[in-house]
Amino acid sequence: MIDRLRHDEGLLSAVASLLCSGPHVHGDRRLDVLARVAMNVLAEPGDGVAGALVRQLGAVEALRVAVGDAPTPARMRGSSRIDDTALAEGLARWCPRTDPRRVSDAVRSARDADAQLVIPGDPQWPAQIDDLGAHAPLLLWVRGDVGMLTVAPRVAIVGARAASAYGEHVAAEFAGDLAATGSVIVSGGAYGIDGTAHRAALSAGGATVAFLAGGVDRAYPRGHRDLLERIRSTGAVVSEVPCGTAPTKWRFLARNRLIAATSDATVVIEAGRRSGSLNTAGHAAALGRPLGAVPGPVTSASSEGCHRLLREYDARCVTSVAEIRELWGDEADVRVQQRVDPDETRLLDALSSRVTLSAAELARRCGLAVDRVSSLLGILELGGEVERSERGWIRRRRHASRS
Amino acid sequence: MIDRLRHDEGLLSAVASLLCSGPHVHGDRRLDVLARVAMNVLAEPGDGVAGALVRQLGAVEALRVAVGDAPTPARMRGSSRIDDTALAEGLARWCPRTDPRRVSDAVRSARDADAQLVIPGDPQWPAQIDDLGAHAPLLLWVRGDVGMLTVAPRVAIVGARAASAYGEHVAAEFAGDLAATGSVIVSGGAYGIDGTAHRAALSAGGATVAFLAGGVDRAYPRGHRDLLERIRSTGAVVSEVPCGTAPTKWRFLARNRLIAATSDATVVIEAGRRSGSLNTAGHAAALGRPLGAVPGPVTSASSEGCHRLLREYDARCVTSVAEIRELWGDEADVRVQQRVDPDETRLLDALSSRVTLSAAELARRCGLAVDRVSSLLGILELGGEVERSERGWIRRRRHASRS
Repeated sequence: MIDRLRHDEGLLSAVASLLCSGPHVHGDRRLDVLARVAMNVLAEPGDGVAGALVRQLGAVEALRVAVGDAPTPARMRGSSRIDDTALAEGLARWCPRTDPRRVSDAVRSARDADAQLVIPGDPQWPAQIDDLGAHAPLLLWVRGDVGMLTVAPRVAIVGARAASAYGEHVAAEFAGDLAATGSVIVSGGAYGIDGTAHRAALSAGGATVAFLAGGVDRAYPRGHRDLLERIRSTGAVVSEVPCGTAPTKWRFLARNRLIAATSDATVVIEAGRRSGSLNTAGHAAALGRPLGAVPGPVTSASSEGCHRLLREYDARCVTSVAEIRELWGDEADVRVQQRVDPDETRLLDALSSRVTLSAAELARRCGLAVDRVSSLLGILELGGEVERSERGWIRRRRHASRS
Repeated sequence: MIDRLRHDEGLLSAVASLLCSGPHVHGDRRLDVLARVAMNVLAEPGDGVAGALVRQLGAVEALRVAVGDAPTPARMRGSSRIDDTALAEGLARWCPRTDPRRVSDAVRSARDADAQLVIPGDPQWPAQIDDLGAHAPLLLWVRGDVGMLTVAPRVAIVGARAASAYGEHVAAEFAGDLAATGSVIVSGGAYGIDGTAHRAALSAGGATVAFLAGGVDRAYPRGHRDLLERIRSTGAVVSEVPCGTAPTKWRFLARNRLIAATSDATVVIEAGRRSGSLNTAGHAAALGRPLGAVPGPVTSASSEGCHRLLREYDARCVTSVAEIRELWGDEADVRVQQRVDPDETRLLDALSSRVTLSAAELARRCGLAVDRVSSLLGILELGGEVERSERGWIRRRRHASRS
């Protein structure tokens, strides 16, 4: 297959024109990009064997092996890098898709959709995504502003499709505030929390990125066609599967790992007990990314997933935008500990604002030494909290001290 | 002072009659109990110096030292056990209260209130409370069933006085369920969450204990006079301060440590940012007792304290009675992990319930090998999820398989 691709000049220049890093690539570099697209067509998202092949052999050689045009290189056979059985299974998986027309279809539909191609090594490639190792995507298809993928901080705001009014209120509040103050809101474009987060970011004049499970040319869900178009026009719509690819349950699960991996923190606003956003959260936790969960009423099924995250995933409980920013170490909340001398509390308890009491009586009442009481009374007098008279001490009423 | 007490036969037999472990104590034992009551009168709750003196010298000798009738024993002076300065400060604190009438007043009002006395060593003494070390109470005054203090499990259900309808609903639900299934509900008798928890326990026919900040003869808050009376009649009302003592802010804080220390777990249902129940929670955490916090809407000020506990105190998020029971290791929730073969998910995604597809086409669609697809189809066929025809495979509709 590689030889057919190598001599298809139209396809080679078409794929080069999709590259976000500039269409001015030639020769071997163009073939390398085209081979990468071919591997992207052959393998489903997150195919670790395909990923390992491309990483170790480069895209051209990986494709040769993948379509059976070349034997597995000796240096990989039997090595611990790729297991022989795994490789054989990979070949069997890719075989049904070995068809050069699929590659040209992917390139043509990307061009039609005005999608760009971002590959590892491009300045626009989000380096964090490589933490996925062999399961990292081979490339990303992007409609809109490819620069969005590297603007920081990026925070994933995700949650249930079946969100409650409470969840949507909180999502709008948090995403709007974060976007207004410079964070990129990453989400999955779904109904419910995702859509609310995207919309709030747009309304705040901020930046937002939607990762789709299908091709970037396919508006899914249909009802979000206009929203996705608005996201594309100021932010970016991103997917790892070629244009024309339908979203499937598997691809939703795979897509979730990209949301978690490209974000500096993931926050789940609301999630049912088995919500897909728990999957995104699981990826964030597995990658060691900061994970926040917004609590809600224990009587609400839409918050059950968030509470599971707090209980089982060691997610951080977040209740405000400031607490979300703390997730990536921004603006750490300075907590002022109010230090009160406990003896002062005891003396204030004993004082009356109606009756004048002697230091000796106050000492008996609060169980402190007379000396200690006298010195504390001096401090409280300075603070305007007590008043001295000939017969003893009286507590000043708060409103009196204000007048 | 000790000599006056030693010869007050009426007072000695009166104090003996208060003892829950039986009034049949004589001689030195009676004097020891009376001296302990005297120390209880002299010192405020949690006075660590008084506690250390009684632990190390016994109540009689401690009292002698405390009122200045005896020098500090040589074996304690300069030792690391009690610091000389701390002891001098203690003597100065206790001096204003050195009056034998205060002791007889405490005994008389306890008798009038039908209160009983529980001291360390009694079978009814809650041993867990000694984890407070020198800050453990010297004794407990109890109205009602003294046996309540040692029935297990005991769970503290505490929270804001200014509770929301949500908080009261959850408190009633949880306390009622726990009480109905044999847990003793411990709380502070206050308005809001505390009162709701007590009431729910009583309605469920369960057991409940109220720890008061003032004497057990003083109904506080006044509006809970009837509730406290109901608690006394089937459960217990407990305090460490002598009858007649007024509740003060200091004593509320000190009381909170008893709630935490005597309970197998502490659960905060709802708490404002500076709620007193955070103090109870802090004691539970410091004692290493399991601590649970019930989450609520982030838009509710009454849940702010619970969210602080989740964030800052490492409290466990609890959303049900089963999760509360897990706090003390009861009925650990058995989680059944639903294991689904990811390839099965991919194949199910590819199948149609309208169009019949060949194994080869399915392999292309889902990116799996044809062999793998065929074997998975066999499994799905056994499970009744797909149907085979001459032209290929079709997904069975769920409702069809039910009919």
